[in-house]
Amino acid sequence: MARAIAVSASALGVCTPNPPVGAVVLDAAGEVVGIGATEAPGGRHAEVVALDSAGDRARGGTIVVTLEPCDHHGRTGPCTSRIVAAGLARVVYAVSDPNPVASGGAGTLRREGVEVARADDDEVGAARSGPLRAWLHRQDHGRPLVTWKYAASLDGRVAAADGSSKWITGPVSRRHAHARRQEIDALVVGTGTLRADDPALTARTDDGRPAPRQPLRAVMGLSPVPADATVRGTDGRFRHLATRDPAEALGLLGEVSHVLVEGGPRLAGAFLAAGLVDEIDAYLAPLVLGAGRSAVSGAGVDTLAAAHGFRIRGTTVLGDDVHLCLTRPGLTRPATATTPTAPTRGPR
Amino acid sequence: MARAIAVSASALGVCTPNPPVGAVVLDAAGEVVGIGATEAPGGRHAEVVALDSAGDRARGGTIVVTLEPCDHHGRTGPCTSRIVAAGLARVVYAVSDPNPVASGGAGTLRREGVEVARADDDEVGAARSGPLRAWLHRQDHGRPLVTWKYAASLDGRVAAADGSSKWITGPVSRRHAHARRQEIDALVVGTGTLRADDPALTARTDDGRPAPRQPLRAVMGLSPVPADATVRGTDGRFRHLATRDPAEALGLLGEVSHVLVEGGPRLAGAFLAAGLVDEIDAYLAPLVLGAGRSAVSGAGVDTLAAAHGFRIRGTTVLGDDVHLCLTRPGLTRPATATTPTAPTRGPR
Repeated sequence: MARAIAVSASALGVCTPNPPVGAVVLDAAGEVVGIGATEAPGGRHAEVVALDSAGDRARGGTIVVTLEPCDHHGRTGPCTSRIVAAGLARVVYAVSDPNPVASGGAGTLRREGVEVARADDDEVGAARSGPLRAWLHRQDHGRPLVTWKYAASLDGRVAAADGSSKWITGPVSRRHAHARRQEIDALVVGTGTLRADDPALTARTDDGRPAPRQPLRAVMGLSPVPADATVRGTDGRFRHLATRDPAEALGLLGEVSHVLVEGGPRLAGAFLAAGLVDEIDAYLAPLVLGAGRSAVSGAGVDTLAAAHGFRIRGTTVLGDDVHLCLTRPGLTRPATATTPTAPTRGPR
Repeated sequence: MARAIAVSASALGVCTPNPPVGAVVLDAAGEVVGIGATEAPGGRHAEVVALDSAGDRARGGTIVVTLEPCDHHGRTGPCTSRIVAAGLARVVYAVSDPNPVASGGAGTLRREGVEVARADDDEVGAARSGPLRAWLHRQDHGRPLVTWKYAASLDGRVAAADGSSKWITGPVSRRHAHARRQEIDALVVGTGTLRADDPALTARTDDGRPAPRQPLRAVMGLSPVPADATVRGTDGRFRHLATRDPAEALGLLGEVSHVLVEGGPRLAGAFLAAGLVDEIDAYLAPLVLGAGRSAVSGAGVDTLAAAHGFRIRGTTVLGDDVHLCLTRPGLTRPATATTPTAPTRGPR
């Protein structure tokens, strides 16, 4: 299951609105003979990718999959049929499919004579808090998971008194943040950040080139976005969310699972005040500024008892900086960011 | 040596202006027969405490000590004489005594026929960056080591918009901070904090009672300190440092080794601007406020390139909070705070 979860990360930023699933096929002797992750919409599900690469070696074997195999005819046939046709003896899955249209796979498989087992509780927990968590959040709450990301000095400043902000954090943090951009579906900044920085908002590789997976780039606010703004790009993956209301902005993004709010302070404050920040990625540099723009403003808190409370899920030293992963109480996530892996299409 | 370093922590906050030294005596067979740490001024040095508890069992044995044994007649006789008189065969020490009055112990011991060895480089490093570091800093720089401590929200606020600040961090962090107060010599706040909070500035135990070791309590600034201010206490350990200049304030504290600057924002800014912050203890709560007093103001930084730069030496999760240990580049310290131990006076 750990391997199935790991491979599912390669589907992040690619598979939405489908869930990022990972699957591993073992032959009757327990050898790994196929691995797969969800392809882009219209492409194959993880089970099919893994079974395609396993071929006849799957017969009598086991498939381990992070999500209950689907049981419906969407753009692709049901995975349950493929599992039965492949002659698999056993299915082990972690998370039950919460989608009423696609669920019921476990029951169908059992009726077809396939042994079906749930993973153990730790594995289910790891699958729920891993790459699947944003998609599950959307199923449960009808809106995407929202992660607020910021890079600040120790004293919470995102720019110095003269507005200078490049770079507060070091190259290791920036590389980490660019890897994260490849794992989400859409990235939102406010019009203030647009005016101040004219950011590209693309995910870039270590050598500064565009990464293979790119999120939607969105600017939220009523001010117009200039025709020559860098964020527009040429790939059609730009959206202007002409609203001041965070919930409405999320709606305008369509069927995305994971949204990254990257600033500035007022945008972060608006999402916090609306109760729409589920996770925080804080990159803190070992610097003290003592003046300049703070990471958040207008979060609607006037007294300590009304503070927006989170839980620390992990701390990681990134070069000279420290990265804090937090969630709203009750939500879980891995203590460190998923490391993006090259999409895996079967064993190598 | 690790045990000698650990026991030396019990001398912190007690032994100043003497160094917090730890010593372990092994008999000829290598069994531990005595342990000691520096006593209060006028009391015994660590070597003597350890030798007193070892008695005759020290003969032919080894003493392991964090600092080169002293060779001068101060308020106590030279440790070198006691080591020779005890019949020890071997001395292992970590840090050479930088004090010209007391140094030369290693040479004296060798002339008396005692084998003298330096600890290995890792042990020397651990001793230098451990409990001895503040005393060594004073020897090297002629001024105490200064640690700035603050407790803030994720976005660097030390109070909410209405001034409420109790408690931003949780009970585990507060207990940790009170333990730290027992390891330093003096604690400084500004007159603004005095007016806002009327703090006691005492070190307290888990049940709220005064701890056995108490730092000097100092208020810095030109405003008068009211006669009924809680900080004055009744133990004579209060100082009003009537200056706005951090260097002058440190001078007024006398021969202390380790000073803790606890706020508020302007005092922290003044010490930072003067280049007089050597270490930072940051307690960050998983809260977002978005408004209210920031941890620092007036640090003299107008652009990012002029930021006060530090190095992260360790991160520790304390209950719901995270504690970051930082130093100025070039300085070292343990990644986690020294845990105060009961003063040890020989083996138990």
